[in-house]
Parts: sequence; C-alpha cells; structure tokens
Amino acid sequence: MGKIAKFAAVIVSSVMLLSACGKADLSNEKAVKAEASKNAGSTVFGPHEHVNQKPTPVKINRIGEHEVNIEMTSQITDIEISKGDMYKAWTFNGEAPGPVIVVNQGDKINFTLKNIDPAIPHSMDFHAVHASPSEDFANVMPDHTGTFSYPADNPGVFMYHCGTKPVLSHIANGMHGTIIVKPTSGYPTDSEVDREYVIVQNEWYKYNDLEDFTNGTPKYVVFSAKALKDGDINTNGTVGALVDKPLLAKVGDKVRFYVMNVGPNEVSSFHVVGTMFDDVYLDGNPFNHMKGMQTIMLPASGGAVVEFTVTKEGSYPFVTHQFNHVTKGAAGALKVTKDGHDDGSEVMSH
Amino acid sequence: MGKIAKFAAVIVSSVMLLSACGKADLSNEKAVKAEASKNAGSTVFGPHEHVNQKPTPVKINRIGEHEVNIEMTSQITDIEISKGDMYKAWTFNGEAPGPVIVVNQGDKINFTLKNIDPAIPHSMDFHAVHASPSEDFANVMPDHTGTFSYPADNPGVFMYHCGTKPVLSHIANGMHGTIIVKPTSGYPTDSEVDREYVIVQNEWYKYNDLEDFTNGTPKYVVFSAKALKDGDINTNGTVGALVDKPLLAKVGDKVRFYVMNVGPNEVSSFHVVGTMFDDVYLDGNPFNHMKGMQTIMLPASGGAVVEFTVTKEGSYPFVTHQFNHVTKGAAGALKVTKDGHDDGSEVMSH
Amino acid sequence: MGKIAKFAAVIVSSVMLLSACGKADLSNEKAVKAEASKNAGSTVFGPHEHVNQKPTPVKINRIGEHEVNIEMTSQITDIEISKGDMYKAWTFNGEAPGPVIVVNQGDKINFTLKNIDPAIPHSMDFHAVHASPSEDFANVMPDHTGTFSYPADNPGVFMYHCGTKPVLSHIANGMHGTIIVKPTSGYPTDSEVDREYVIVQNEWYKYNDLEDFTNGTPKYVVFSAKALKDGDINTNGTVGALVDKPLLAKVGDKVRFYVMNVGPNEVSSFHVVGTMFDDVYLDGNPFNHMKGMQTIMLPASGGAVVEFTVTKEGSYPFVTHQFNHVTKGAAGALKVTKDGHDDGSEVMSH
Repeated sequence: MGKIAKFAAVIVSSVMLLSACGKADLSNEKAVKAEASKNAGSTVFGPHEHVNQKPTPVKINRIGEHEVNIEMTSQITDIEISKGDMYKAWTFNGEAPGPVIVVNQGDKINFTLKNIDPAIPHSMDFHAVHASPSEDFANVMPDHTGTFSYPADNPGVFMYHCGTKPVLSHIANGMHGTIIVKPTSGYPTDSEVDREYVIVQNEWYKYNDLEDFTNGTPKYVVFSAKALKDGDINTNGTVGALVDKPLLAKVGDKVRFYVMNVGPNEVSSFHVVGTMFDDVYLDGNPFNHMKGMQTIMLPASGGAVVEFTVTKEGSYPFVTHQFNHVTKGAAGALKVTKDGHDDGSEVMSH
Repeated sequence: MGKIAKFAAVIVSSVMLLSACGKADLSNEKAVKAEASKNAGSTVFGPHEHVNQKPTPVKINRIGEHEVNIEMTSQITDIEISKGDMYKAWTFNGEAPGPVIVVNQGDKINFTLKNIDPAIPHSMDFHAVHASPSEDFANVMPDHTGTFSYPADNPGVFMYHCGTKPVLSHIANGMHGTIIVKPTSGYPTDSEVDREYVIVQNEWYKYNDLEDFTNGTPKYVVFSAKALKDGDINTNGTVGALVDKPLLAKVGDKVRFYVMNVGPNEVSSFHVVGTMFDDVYLDGNPFNHMKGMQTIMLPASGGAVVEFTVTKEGSYPFVTHQFNHVTKGAAGALKVTKDGHDDGSEVMSH
Repeated sequence: MGKIAKFAAVIVSSVMLLSACGKADLSNEKAVKAEASKNAGSTVFGPHEHVNQKPTPVKINRIGEHEVNIEMTSQITDIEISKGDMYKAWTFNGEAPGPVIVVNQGDKINFTLKNIDPAIPHSMDFHAVHASPSEDFANVMPDHTGTFSYPADNPGVFMYHCGTKPVLSHIANGMHGTIIVKPTSGYPTDSEVDREYVIVQNEWYKYNDLEDFTNGTPKYVVFSAKALKDGDINTNGTVGALVDKPLLAKVGDKVRFYVMNVGPNEVSSFHVVGTMFDDVYLDGNPFNHMKGMQTIMLPASGGAVVEFTVTKEGSYPFVTHQFNHVTKGAAGALKVTKDGHDDGSEVMSH
C-alpha cells in the first residue's frame, strides 16, 4: 500500500472513529487530495502549495486591570526545521512553536483568531482557561475571524494548540505554543531569580503525514526558546538553533526556565547538564513545589517552572535525557560567562 | 519468518528468560498450538475458538465493618473493541476492563476467583493489597476456584490484573481493571465534589499476539467508564464508546475522575479539554496533593484522583495528550448541560 | 541501504547537527571504520575487537570530613547481557551499570578518570554535582588520566554517565551508573528501614549501532542490583540476573530501594508486586515526599528512594509495569523468608 493510500486509509478510519462530530470537516476532505510538492520529497497539502505567509506579530493589549485583548493569526509559513530542511508549517503567527503569551492570574482574555490560511479552518485551545470547548474553541473558517472570551484563573505554564480535527495533524504541523499565567502571589523563589527563559520541546515528522504522525517515530525532536517579554530570543523549533545561538547567563545566576513539552506524541525527560533544579513547580503552579531534581518528567502537554544555579563559566547543554531524541536534535545550550555576554567560546554539544 | 513462527520464538525466549519458574505453564504450551480463526484475520487461541461466556456480575458482600467478600470470574468473552471489530477477550467477569471494585481503607478482602476459562490458568494481582505474590496471587486452574485473603491498608486508585505468565498476554488480552480503596478520612475536597466517574485507559493490539504486544504499537488506545456504585455507566474499552455515549455533568459541577492507566505498555498524559485539574491526588492518596494541573503523567499502572470544575454548557473531550493515541481512539467526552441531563447536543471530537 | 551505510549516515547527520563542537571527535571517525566481528553477528567497534579488560575496583577514599577522592576507569569489558549473549561493553570499571558511588551531601568530590580504553576518549558527567560541563566533564583521551573537582551539595539518587559524543552511543554501550548523595539530615523514615538495595534499570540494543539506538526498540530491558556498601550484591544489567539470584529480606522488613533508570531512551513505571511504596522520595530528595504509591514514573535519568514493607514469606517480583519491557527482561525478585536467608524456594516470574 503506497503512502497516499495509507494516508487516506487513516483519514477514513479517523473519520469513522470520531464520526459523532457532524461538523463539516474540510481539512480531511482536502487532505485526501493533497499532491506531491517539491518539499524534500514529501507531500505538501495541495491548497497550501504556493502559500507562504509572512510572520504576523501577536497583539497583546491590556485593557483593564484584569482584562487583556489578544489577537493571533492562523497562517501558513515556511520555517526551517533543520539546516536546509524547510517545512510549510501550519502556524500561529508564522512561528512554530507560536509566540509566548503572558497574562496574569485572574485575567479575562478576549481572544481574536484571524484565520488567514486560505484553505482550512483552525481554532485555539488554551489549556490555561475555563471554557466550553465546543463553543469557545470552535473552528474559524478560512479568511474569517473568531472572537472568544474566557478567564485564566489558575497560574502556570500551559500549552495552547489548534483544536481542529484531526488535532494531531494541526499540532504536528506546527500549531502549538505556550501561555504563561503569572501567579498573583508569585513563586516563593521569585526574589532569587536572575534570568528567565521559555523553552519549548516539540517533534517534527514527515510532512503533513497523518500516518507517520500516528505510527512513525519523530524525524526531529527540538527545543526552541521564546522571549518572556520583548527581547531578541525567538527561535523556531529548529535543530541546532539553541546550539548555534545559545542562551546566556552569568556566573552565579539563578536561572528560571518555563518549560513546555507540546509533543504531539512524546513525553520529555528534561535535564540541564552540570547543575540540578533547586526548585521545580510542576505545571508552573506554586503549590506543586519540588526540590533538588536532576530531571523532570513532562507528559505531552506538561509544563514546569525549573530553577537552577550556574556556578562556573562554561557551556551547559540542556536535553531531554531520552537520548534517542538528542540524536534527533533535542539539545540546546546555556552559555555562562563572567558578565553574561557571549564571549565567543565554543558550545558543548552531545 | 511468518507470524506463527515469530510468536513461538518469542514464547520460547520468554520461557528461557524466566525459566526460574518451575510451575506448569499451560498457557505457553497451548498458545503455540493456536490456530487461525475467523476473527478478522487474526489468531484466536485454539481452545477458546468457540468459547464466548456471558458476562458474570461481580459479587461484593460486606460481612463485617472491616471485612468484605469479593467473588470474580476469569472468563472468555467476545467484546467489541471498535465498531465491528470483535475481540475474544480474556476477562474478569466478561468485561475489559473488568468491573470496578470499591473497598474501604482497612478492609480485609476475602477474594474468590472462579476460573471458568476452560483452557488456561488465571490469577489475580491486586495492586491495592499487601500479599505474598507467590502464594496469594497464585494460579487458579481451569474450572477451579481459588480463595485468598489480604488487607487493603492504603487508600488510592489501584490497578488489578491477571498475574499468570506471560503476564503481558493476560493483560493485553483484557485482564485488567481498577480497585479503589476509599481513604478513612476522605479527601480534603470531598465536600466540594458533585459527581464521580471512573475512567480507565487501555491499549489493544493484534489478537493474542505476544510478538505484537512486545514489539508492536497499539492498534487502539481507548478509554472506558465504569460506575463507581451501581449505575448505568459501564463501557468496555471500545473506540468511541464515550463519544457515542458521553458522561454527563451540569454547569458548575465539580467533577471527580478516578483515573487508571492499565497499559499494558504505554504511559498516559491525561487531560480534559476546556478546564484544568484544581486538585490532583497521585495514585489516589490524599497525601499526594497537587493543584492546578493541565495534564497528569500516569505511568503504566498509575492511578490518580483528578477534580475539575465545568463552568459552561458544552462538550468537554478528554484525551491522553499523546495525540497519536487519540487518533487510535483515546478520546471520550463529558457533556455539560444546564440540568445534567443529556440534551441531545452534538459531542465534540478530536 | 545496508546497516553500515545507515550507521554512517546517522553519524554524518549527528555530526552535522551538532557541529558547533569543534573538538576532535575520534569516536565518530573510528566508528565508521568498525568491522564485523564474531560477536553474535553484530558489529564490534574495530579497535576494540580484541580488547577485554578485567574489571577494576573503584577507589573511594575519604580524605576529609567533607572531601572524598574517587578514582574510576573507563574501559572495554565483555559482559553477559543475557544467557550466552556477550556484549563488549564500554564501561566504568568493567561493570555495566558501573559501580554505585556514595557520598555525603556537602562533600567536595575530587574525581579521577583513568581512560584505559585504547581507542576512544571518554568522560564523566555526574548529575549530582554543580560543574562547568565544558570543563569539568571534558574528554579524557585514550591512555590518559583526567582529574576534576566539584561539590555535591544536593541529596538524592543521581545518574552518572559518559558525556562524550555521541553521548547516546556511550550510554547505550554501557557507560552509566548511580551516585547517591546522602542527605545531611537523613530521610524522615530512616529509622524504620531494615534493608537497602540499589536497583538500576537500563536497556540494551544491537551492538554499538547508533541507528538502532536512535530508531530501534530495546533488545533487552534489564534490572541490576548494586551493593550500597561493601557486599556481595553486584550484578551487571543481565536478563534474569535478579531472578536467578534474588534479593533477600525477612518477614516484616521495611525495605528501601534506591532506584535509578539510566535509559538511555525509555521511561520506567517501577513497581514491586505484592506491596506498595509507603514512602517515596522523588529523585531521592527528602523534600519530595509522596506516600502510598503503587508505581513510580521515572524519566530517563530519573531516580527515587522507595520504601515498602513485606508482610509475608514469598517471592515479590519487581518490574517496570510497561510490560513489553518485562517480556524483554525487566524483572527481578525479592525473596522474603522467615529469617532473611535464602530458603531455596522457587522464585516467581512474569
């Protein structure tokens, strides 16, 4: 059975299994018509073939002490997932993972999704909010805009992702990211922290191949870093991105990582070489406090705040200690220098 | 090497590896003789070919303040694991997963296993008890009855399963379930909870194929729901069962799930869409309290009590966020209505 | 594409991905030249073909109240990973897993690595210490000795492993082990514990096959036991080792396991049959206290202290409840007798 045939078979099976949903399912219908493209021998979704939309900045506007407007796009954008390997990603705002969203515990979020993908519907499922999924995470059709409101009552490090069927395809093609809800009373260790970074782990598979998403193993497993506030750190999930351009800290710093594993399929064993996590808050909730951990277990769509101290100059790799994934790209580096600036020294790799 | 040959090879290897056990191992001897059946092209264990035993109600009789008699059967029963896909399951009481058992912390359990499987021995390994495995979890021969006594001293949500060699085959063929030991002093959040459900995750593989159980990937990953007390909720581990017939709650309810991942092989990243877990008790022990989690990591044979609030009408899917497993069936739904009764609305699926 | 070709391709890819490291990478260059050997049809790394170095005792000398000298070797030693299946392991001190190291919280470790492997560099990455990875975990060339100093400030059960590229090959070929840092103020349950064992889980793959390490499934998953102090318990990661020669306890004992999952790729769902873990300290830190757990989830490179009570004579298997791994060897046994001595009774297996 050829690749296309298998793909179709899985789609059919998926439709059958989940047929309780009577909504029009454009993504499936069109996916079956997908044709081969020039993308490294893989299959680009037909209607996306010549689409490559420029990244769109996310808009976050606080309009009240406890209310914030957020506007994002769903769009099709080429990103480099490994050197020379382009992927016509399904994205939020042209990034994969998408931009980091930061709100405060107790905020009401007024969310607007502009779906500028010309071909298929998308949607937004924030793990951070209380919502009615069938209403508030509903599909937004191509060239349409949807608006939704919901509260973010619980602090933590949460995943967001497109929730349109087949969800696996939407996540695996790039529609995932992190939303941080800052706790009203902070973390017990807030005053000790010198630097903060957001680190996301995700997998890449064969292009838009639901069969491979479902039964294959990842082609790449990668880390990306995202600015917590405005800043110049903003990588896509590209193999080697955080080795080529390591994160920075200075000797003695207590560093906080907001870590998120968006999957879609694999769990993560997150570890920073040369140190250990003095403080861990599972899913980013201050109540879930652990200490002195070498490695944290992240489920698919699990988050954490991890804090560690770097005591000497040098290069500190971070990995998922499921080392087959390191061979597939899951390594980044934190470079520690006297003054916190890059001294041009080599970066250690695995 | 054909399928049967591979199967035999693995059996031999299994016997070699575990040869310290000198007990008669009928299951292996007979398994090698297994012949092809009409079951969807797969291989039904020969002596079971024409066996299909009607489900047997579990008997639970409290005979003292701290003592309870439990009688279960091990039996061969056809169950539907996906629409039109029947599986001649090895079961407890004709269900897979088996019936939920509920006892109180401090109970002595007097357990009777009636093995009405005509062909092979079975046994019972309760994770909830202190026992001598080699004595108290011993094999009961075909058409025999075994009785055992042990204390359930620790509160929690525990797996039970057949412990007869090869254990992987007995679990993967359907012999698994959940026993809940209610804590003497309850959970801190008992007074807040409006509804309780028991949710079990399990995998299905090629029929009775130890090679596939060992080296394959799941054909289906499924959720089932079981009544905590008497009730009409009682599904087998069937793809779509909890989408076709969703669980129910009313707006504002705090819902408690007793969750159990019986595997046999995969871990679970359990998540409910549209809400988060206000309170989590890992393995169901009140001491292991976490808060505000989006997703819980369940090892194979890990349990949890998770509690969450549903604030709006609508359909709330639950999944393992290892999304390749969702494509294979691991999705259910909780329907939230004004009054907690089914209003006939559509169920959201993934 | 044949095996060697695939192997080379992966190496090249690995080098490309991680090319930020400019250090000489002897292991890769030579690995490509690897030739077939007589080792069960697999490929022994060429320069190691006739090397089989006798195990070397680890040297641990306390030289001050808070300072300890540790000397280990990296060496090539044949070990039996299953009955009749020899593996020319890359090891610390001729064992795989390597010897258990025990220090006290607050110790300064002066570490010496004698690399007596004639062919390739090795190194030591202790998860227990604060160090500069690029300096303190640096490569030691063949026939050279390296010395390093770092503090072990945090209590727990930590992994150590060779950190030389490709790290996956060095770990998968056998270079891993456990270092325990005893907490200054002990564990709350110290006075209750009667016996202590160190249990390590690791996987074995096709011999020195980075392609199989990266994309394959384990050939074996195994447990080994290591003496905490001087003692006669010291197995390699051999299928059946702890069934053939079970651990011992007497009726009523509270037993403590220091558990470590070194991977390199798989997570573990560690469980002891017939009992449950009264007390669990995740990663071995007294702060991370859980109670009443049936199974603990260990990430790759995750540790734990687990304590349980055995109330009756008999044989108590322990497993990872990811049961496909049990079929591949991940089972051991604790034999409980009246007096704690082996009574020659049968051991239960799975």
